Amino acid sequence: MRIDIISLFPDMFAGPLGHSILKRAQDSGHIAVHVTNPRDFTYDKHHIADDYPFGGGSGMVMKPEPIFRAVENVVCTAKLTRRRIVLMCPGGQVFDQAKARELAGYEQLILVCGHYEGIDDRIRQHVVDEAVSIGDYVLTGGELPAMVITDAVARMLPGVLGADDGAQQDSFYNGLLEYPQYTRPRQFNGWEVPEVLLSGDHAKIERWRRKESLRATLLRRPDLLAGMELSSLDHKLLEEIKTEQAGG
Amino acid sequence: MRIDIISLFPDMFAGPLGHSILKRAQDSGHIAVHVTNPRDFTYDKHHIADDYPFGGGSGMVMKPEPIFRAVENVVCTAKLTRRRIVLMCPGGQVFDQAKARELAGYEQLILVCGHYEGIDDRIRQHVVDEAVSIGDYVLTGGELPAMVITDAVARMLPGVLGADDGAQQDSFYNGLLEYPQYTRPRQFNGWEVPEVLLSGDHAKIERWRRKESLRATLLRRPDLLAGMELSSLDHKLLEEIKTEQAGG
Repeated sequence: MRIDIISLFPDMFAGPLGHSILKRAQDSGHIAVHVTNPRDFTYDKHHIADDYPFGGGSGMVMKPEPIFRAVENVVCTAKLTRRRIVLMCPGGQVFDQAKARELAGYEQLILVCGHYEGIDDRIRQHVVDEAVSIGDYVLTGGELPAMVITDAVARMLPGVLGADDGAQQDSFYNGLLEYPQYTRPRQFNGWEVPEVLLSGDHAKIERWRRKESLRATLLRRPDLLAGMELSSLDHKLLEEIKTEQAGG
Repeated sequence: MRIDIISLFPDMFAGPLGHSILKRAQDSGHIAVHVTNPRDFTYDKHHIADDYPFGGGSGMVMKPEPIFRAVENVVCTAKLTRRRIVLMCPGGQVFDQAKARELAGYEQLILVCGHYEGIDDRIRQHVVDEAVSIGDYVLTGGELPAMVITDAVARMLPGVLGADDGAQQDSFYNGLLEYPQYTRPRQFNGWEVPEVLLSGDHAKIERWRRKESLRATLLRRPDLLAGMELSSLDHKLLEEIKTEQAGG
């Protein structure tokens, strides 16, 4: 997959894209990330990419033409047909794991980052396919959201996660929060690892992990349980959890 | 405010923290961001910060002691009493603008980043004050979430945004999505700026902007409207919008 990021701050991306799984995904050719600066598509002497808002008000607004030209450029360069142009926008559709899975199906993603007070709205209306928000909070620009989406989408591509990365156990992957993990030492500061994990009884460990996944989800994010198909074992475990939580 | 980030990947932060408003906030002394690597608090020859999970399974788990010691170190160094230790965790409370405002009230924030399959759960149970998630998606580590929270919280500190940054107009600040912004040129690719913004009639522009904020929220995020106190003008504008959207 080719991911193009359109941003006035290309230098922000080197660190986050240059480590861990995103680095490996690029090194192995599973993704290619390009950052394009719309300022390079301004044709005036001072390379002005923003201007005052029509109608007054504080702050600056990103001009439409440089972004439009930057998007056209990466479309023409890549020549990929299954592409999606996505605007990072607080008012967009809320990004979640299902959206990550959907976006992972394209050959090219073009992530357009706003900055300052935002982008001329004609970009949202006419240039992008959709607008996406990573959460209900205000950020300085679309750069961090573009990194978040790049990371979440790249992890969904076949071959990006090795067998050792264990994506299947990740939170949201199967609709539940992850069960708690423990590693050595068995005792630290008087805090112990749950006995069952040291038992070597794999069936018991599996059951405990499923139960703790269900417990974490029930206690912290019951909204996630609502939409799920649960097995008869899950229902039994949930009953046990409810009894335990009630102090029974 | 002092923000301490505990992360195995300190190099990821230089870019995102070194630009725009976060850079200015640090230059002006409104925030000081320190990144501490728990690997520097391992005392074995190979500086091992992760280990296999008890009970089996793929992936590695971050060991509890290096993180515990890193947190203790930044607590002792800062000597600030109003502090909050927050774990970046997909199963945590969902981060939003209200949480950003709350966290902005502390003198020190300590943001603990997991990586790999996660962090030994004793850190969540005994060391941190709370666990927070920036959204319902799986990321490679807590580094991007820590950047998001740093950005969102820093923007809430008095003096960080200049008068020109216009935070009051930002989405979620007043509970509504932002109205559309436009800048020059008036016509681009045949796409025009709404006439009212060129009228110079400030009362009319104000009304239009409020109406378009309400429209964006009604159409794209009606859930945000549910909890809001609306003025009688807002109700009138919403009626107009509903008639218009119905093609009336």
